[in-house]
Amino acid sequence: MNDRIDVLGIGNAIVDVLARAEDSFLAARGLEKGTMHLVDAGEADALYAAIGPAVEISGGSAANTIAGLASFGSSAQFIGIVSDDQLGGVFRHDIGSLGVRFDTAPHSGGAPTARCLVLVTPDGERTMNTFLGASQQLGPDDVDEASVARADIVYLEGYLFDPPAAKEAFYKAARLAHGNGGRVALSLSDPFCVDRHREEFRVFVKDEVDILFANEAEIVSLYQAPGFAEAREAVRKEVPLAVLTRSEKGSVIVAGPQEHSVKARSVAKVVDTTGAGDLFAAGFLHGLCKGRPLTDCARLGALAASEVISHIGARPQVNLAELAKGAGLGD
Amino acid sequence: MNDRIDVLGIGNAIVDVLARAEDSFLAARGLEKGTMHLVDAGEADALYAAIGPAVEISGGSAANTIAGLASFGSSAQFIGIVSDDQLGGVFRHDIGSLGVRFDTAPHSGGAPTARCLVLVTPDGERTMNTFLGASQQLGPDDVDEASVARADIVYLEGYLFDPPAAKEAFYKAARLAHGNGGRVALSLSDPFCVDRHREEFRVFVKDEVDILFANEAEIVSLYQAPGFAEAREAVRKEVPLAVLTRSEKGSVIVAGPQEHSVKARSVAKVVDTTGAGDLFAAGFLHGLCKGRPLTDCARLGALAASEVISHIGARPQVNLAELAKGAGLGD
Repeated sequence: MNDRIDVLGIGNAIVDVLARAEDSFLAARGLEKGTMHLVDAGEADALYAAIGPAVEISGGSAANTIAGLASFGSSAQFIGIVSDDQLGGVFRHDIGSLGVRFDTAPHSGGAPTARCLVLVTPDGERTMNTFLGASQQLGPDDVDEASVARADIVYLEGYLFDPPAAKEAFYKAARLAHGNGGRVALSLSDPFCVDRHREEFRVFVKDEVDILFANEAEIVSLYQAPGFAEAREAVRKEVPLAVLTRSEKGSVIVAGPQEHSVKARSVAKVVDTTGAGDLFAAGFLHGLCKGRPLTDCARLGALAASEVISHIGARPQVNLAELAKGAGLGD
Repeated sequence: MNDRIDVLGIGNAIVDVLARAEDSFLAARGLEKGTMHLVDAGEADALYAAIGPAVEISGGSAANTIAGLASFGSSAQFIGIVSDDQLGGVFRHDIGSLGVRFDTAPHSGGAPTARCLVLVTPDGERTMNTFLGASQQLGPDDVDEASVARADIVYLEGYLFDPPAAKEAFYKAARLAHGNGGRVALSLSDPFCVDRHREEFRVFVKDEVDILFANEAEIVSLYQAPGFAEAREAVRKEVPLAVLTRSEKGSVIVAGPQEHSVKARSVAKVVDTTGAGDLFAAGFLHGLCKGRPLTDCARLGALAASEVISHIGARPQVNLAELAKGAGLGD
């Protein structure tokens, strides 16, 4: 078929509002650094009023991955809900301008487009406060069989387990993908998110997931393992391909009995870690779709992650296909 | 009086939409690099649809200067019109979070908040396409005598000559400032803007302006001079204090028979020149309000300009008071 695509991403459609903050600001508000907190409209407004000048950049975990895939040259589609407000227009423009297909109609008159207030501390670490707004209206009806059937890989973000209707969409997408010969990829998103939904994640991962993305804290939390080594062995038994990222310690790819370790790329200065995991997934999936060896996939992931942490915001600022070419990893 | 402020800025309240573009993109659309073009809603939408992923950051020429002044520690107020939409909220948040007083009520139900589509070419130069939206509804009624009377300096952007009602507000502010013992500062904004309004600018500069900010192209255009030297002599006869910026060639301060030249600060990499002139004015005016020698004022201007061109967007990303302290230019 002519209109086949490499990856269909389904996720929360979010605009990030990024501001610098001191550690003391997080401490005073009981915000745990490096994690994501869900906030309601009132909490979002109060926090916004307390933070300094901000920058608005399209975000959303799976959406960042899809944007990265498009920048690498993969064909991609995104499903997620924005409102028909200005920030919804920003989200739609940014993902569409990369050549990503994004057909989901905006909602009118209800909750505004989702926003994530991202507080970036001097160490470059980000702490996220998400008001889900319109994005939590994603439901099974938004996932159409034709879109899923076209995709070689359906990529889901763990954050979709938070809004109840989105979780149903999530299951529907997985079933449709497998029914049409596609593979299902899942990113665990956040250790708190894993805590909130551990039992359901365990069942879903075992039954439905072909490719799992997780960082060290997430995989340890999923299996309530004493350490990384035990979590790695647990996931080896349950998932055909697990991509475990360990920040500056690099990544470990577990494919049944095979295992590969790939180093992280050094970065002159870590400005903002927002999107590091999302862009690692983008590079990895791009390599996978192009039939590259798993170690090259991980190197492409590390390359994209190193680009996104060297500036503010979770979307690449350069063409990743050209970046890959320059690094000897081009298609 | 307790509530005196250093600078009251009056200008277009704009959110910048910044995207990277190639020179060929500008050429294909007949956009002259380094200048500002006014566009209507339809042109703004068409151009937005054609550009790549963007970043939204509060902007507006005088508003950038006021934000810079607040970051240096000067007390400041801003007058300008936003709509009560999401981008209007972004503008209000960003300037308010710096401690700037911004009382102008948002307009409802009419034109949306102004946007400037800023195309940043690989050389770091910016080309601006401004949809004035709600900001052109600024009129004389928005300029209240109490606000003007409180300010030591009233700072006006030349771009206010484009919307007719704003020009009236501009004249009212100047008259009120002088009637209350304040000084009037004007930035010429853009050579095209000077071309559009040369005769009116000439009269206004001669009759009302105490402190004029202009770059080389603007001052040459204002006096239709054969070169910079002739323009400098022309402005010397008409304005008590002229601050002439020449990008990497530094600045020339003309104060009647006195003249000072101050070098530009070198920057490792010019990422985006958006806001360079606005932030130069911020540093200069901060020094002036603190009673510093004119050469220090120019050094503070060069410092703030060097900060803002080293990253995307026209608002400072660091505390300018701390930056000044680190450079031996602290209060």
